[in-house]
Amino acid sequence: MSASHMDRVAALSKRRGFVFPGSEIYGGLQATYDYGPMGAELKRLIKEDWWRVMVRDREDVVGLDASILMAARVWEVSGHVAGFNDPLVDCKECKGRFRADRLAEAVCPKKPSRHPGECGHELTEPRQFNLMFRTKAGPVDDEAATVYLRPETAQGIFVNFKNVLETTRVRIPFGIAQIGKAFRNEIVTGNQLFRMREFEQMEMEFFCAPGTEEEWHAHWKEARLAWWRSLGVRAEKVRLRDHAADELAHYAKACADVEYEYPWGWDEVEGVANRTDFDLKAHQAGSGRGLAYRDEEQKAWVIPYVIEPSAGVDRCFLTILCDAYEEEVKPNGETRTVLRLHPRLAPIQVGVFPLVKKDGMPERARALYEGLKRTWRAQYDEGGTVGKRYARLDEIGTPYCVTIDSDTLVDGTVTVRDRDSMTQERVAAGQVGAYLEERERTWRRAAAAEPR
Amino acid sequence: MSASHMDRVAALSKRRGFVFPGSEIYGGLQATYDYGPMGAELKRLIKEDWWRVMVRDREDVVGLDASILMAARVWEVSGHVAGFNDPLVDCKECKGRFRADRLAEAVCPKKPSRHPGECGHELTEPRQFNLMFRTKAGPVDDEAATVYLRPETAQGIFVNFKNVLETTRVRIPFGIAQIGKAFRNEIVTGNQLFRMREFEQMEMEFFCAPGTEEEWHAHWKEARLAWWRSLGVRAEKVRLRDHAADELAHYAKACADVEYEYPWGWDEVEGVANRTDFDLKAHQAGSGRGLAYRDEEQKAWVIPYVIEPSAGVDRCFLTILCDAYEEEVKPNGETRTVLRLHPRLAPIQVGVFPLVKKDGMPERARALYEGLKRTWRAQYDEGGTVGKRYARLDEIGTPYCVTIDSDTLVDGTVTVRDRDSMTQERVAAGQVGAYLEERERTWRRAAAAEPR
Repeated sequence: MSASHMDRVAALSKRRGFVFPGSEIYGGLQATYDYGPMGAELKRLIKEDWWRVMVRDREDVVGLDASILMAARVWEVSGHVAGFNDPLVDCKECKGRFRADRLAEAVCPKKPSRHPGECGHELTEPRQFNLMFRTKAGPVDDEAATVYLRPETAQGIFVNFKNVLETTRVRIPFGIAQIGKAFRNEIVTGNQLFRMREFEQMEMEFFCAPGTEEEWHAHWKEARLAWWRSLGVRAEKVRLRDHAADELAHYAKACADVEYEYPWGWDEVEGVANRTDFDLKAHQAGSGRGLAYRDEEQKAWVIPYVIEPSAGVDRCFLTILCDAYEEEVKPNGETRTVLRLHPRLAPIQVGVFPLVKKDGMPERARALYEGLKRTWRAQYDEGGTVGKRYARLDEIGTPYCVTIDSDTLVDGTVTVRDRDSMTQERVAAGQVGAYLEERERTWRRAAAAEPR
Repeated sequence: MSASHMDRVAALSKRRGFVFPGSEIYGGLQATYDYGPMGAELKRLIKEDWWRVMVRDREDVVGLDASILMAARVWEVSGHVAGFNDPLVDCKECKGRFRADRLAEAVCPKKPSRHPGECGHELTEPRQFNLMFRTKAGPVDDEAATVYLRPETAQGIFVNFKNVLETTRVRIPFGIAQIGKAFRNEIVTGNQLFRMREFEQMEMEFFCAPGTEEEWHAHWKEARLAWWRSLGVRAEKVRLRDHAADELAHYAKACADVEYEYPWGWDEVEGVANRTDFDLKAHQAGSGRGLAYRDEEQKAWVIPYVIEPSAGVDRCFLTILCDAYEEEVKPNGETRTVLRLHPRLAPIQVGVFPLVKKDGMPERARALYEGLKRTWRAQYDEGGTVGKRYARLDEIGTPYCVTIDSDTLVDGTVTVRDRDSMTQERVAAGQVGAYLEERERTWRRAAAAEPR
């Protein structure tokens, strides 16, 4: 995997409708991206899978969907207004603005071969630049109208902790999970979906009794790593890394990152933090509302500790695409591009083709397609040669293609072609559904035994 | 249904974890709401249902997920910077700000029995107030950094029209669908989820050949009305209403609203507009990029016409809750509150209870629960009397409750209790899944034949 791997993934993303640059017809808006038809579907599948594993399959986690706009006071109390900053320097010569702690990654706009500070131009002293987007809500344009776009979904969970405790049957230990947009006005963006100013988070705050947080931290680190592996990404490219003490955020006592080995090196795809009782304590003090739970054994009101697995939807998407992308030389010497998506995540799971547009093949293919699409994400395709149709579906990660040909009309069998091995099998048309189910079970077993 | 119906729905929403006021522990942020555990699930189910009907079940519609932040130029060209305004007046006395065209709905802050303008205070002349939220992106705080939070998801679709056409196999006529947040800095908000400043849209732009737009408009009006009825809302409370010419937005040639009869009267839940070729023409002129498609019969490049069904997720949620809420006097004279949600939309579809916490009933109930939850959204509950458990699940709209009692241990049967009729049937424990499936088919048939 080389640096140009990213370029090739981005080219495929654009070509096959996964990711388009945002506002592209107007020259783009820096670091924004739009998910095209295939991308929107893959993104939905990632979110559904996270929700299933984190909420629906668990009895100790419930969902939440809080507003992006919250009272400004939330961010004062959480520490974000004062402290959610990066150090910013200005170049006095070229007026460029850079992150003071990342100068080595930046280039001087006037001397692109040099880094800012090394180019002979004078930089200002670093000053703190707050990463929250500000706007004003309501018709009165004064300071009191200031609101922020949330920089993390977590605070929406903390301020609703008591509401959830009082209206549901969950008891400590339990979690509240949320998927939603967050916004950070990053000084430096980059690596396509990896660091954007608008992004989507999948966060869960797990509230537990003080003293049990290390055990739960260990639990969630392993649970989250297992989820990443279940997505079908190469096992050797995903790892857990514990933060050193000097890397920790102000609210965290410990944190581990799930990391993936991108073309530019190992980088964070998810953080699993021990946020202690920092946030609830701060909000209790800031709001004057009791945010403790009643511990009946201790006969005491207790502020729980919090373990937070926090993943980015967009990073997850980028990781899956990076990992699945492969260029492969076929036996005939041609190169094909294939996206080895796990069938669970493939936007289209099965393509159904008539070999040619005559002799009743389209009708037979349509009938098969109509049946399959009740269970599978299926696509009917009769355009171009079968080879071209295979190539197109290889590039969008479709694991199986079914072709209706002249033999189908004679013996009722069809060809099922496998994306990864490119082998073809004859299967009775009526058995295609059962065949796909059996193959799905094989994938599931493989994922359980030894993740790819 | 009276005005206080809304208050009672709001009270249940809060009590059962459907909807909490936003930033509540800080006194709230006006017109923001957070969806609690039950609400987050219902909202997800609404969105999934829309996506299934509008995208997955159709071959002529594809999905998209565009960024909330778009280049400012998009909104200049679309007409929103100049024209997305409401008329605003200030009271010179009390400094209140009001919508000039809605004074009759507002009250004077100093004389709450009077409307502004009738209270003796002098109002300013109306001026145009732009409804877009503004913010700045990037570290440089100048005019060029201004971006808007999108006031509609539609423009994200228009600017990607050519990208979608070039990267997928859809051809005119086809649609692009999107679900996502939008923001409007309304002067007047109200009716809880009905008019908020942050809300979620489910929009689809259907691109068709000029001359066919009226036919497609008729198609989508009926299709959308049918969807609303399929949600199980009372048929007599949903209707289509065509706009009069003076109600139309600047881009629309015709529009019909799907309306629901709320406690405050008939109001819009969805608009189905004929947006003509206004947006694509404007973006073609504004961007200099060709946004026509090739019509092979006419041998010409043509800008398609657009039919847009645009629904609000939050309004849909509110509508379903309003419609499903009922207080009913039971045969024993007690009143019960019940949420008659369609089983397809119930956050919990089946509750499983042991009658008492002994004699192996919890184990039998757990085993049944574990089996059912593979297919159904199930909840296990052993707390409180069975009557209280029924009451709780009635309030969150759970259509079926299954109780394991002492007879279960003898003959293997359980009690299935129906939310709406409150009747109970004995069913073999192993047949509960099949029983629920059969009941689901009955609901589906009823919805198809004669919507509730």
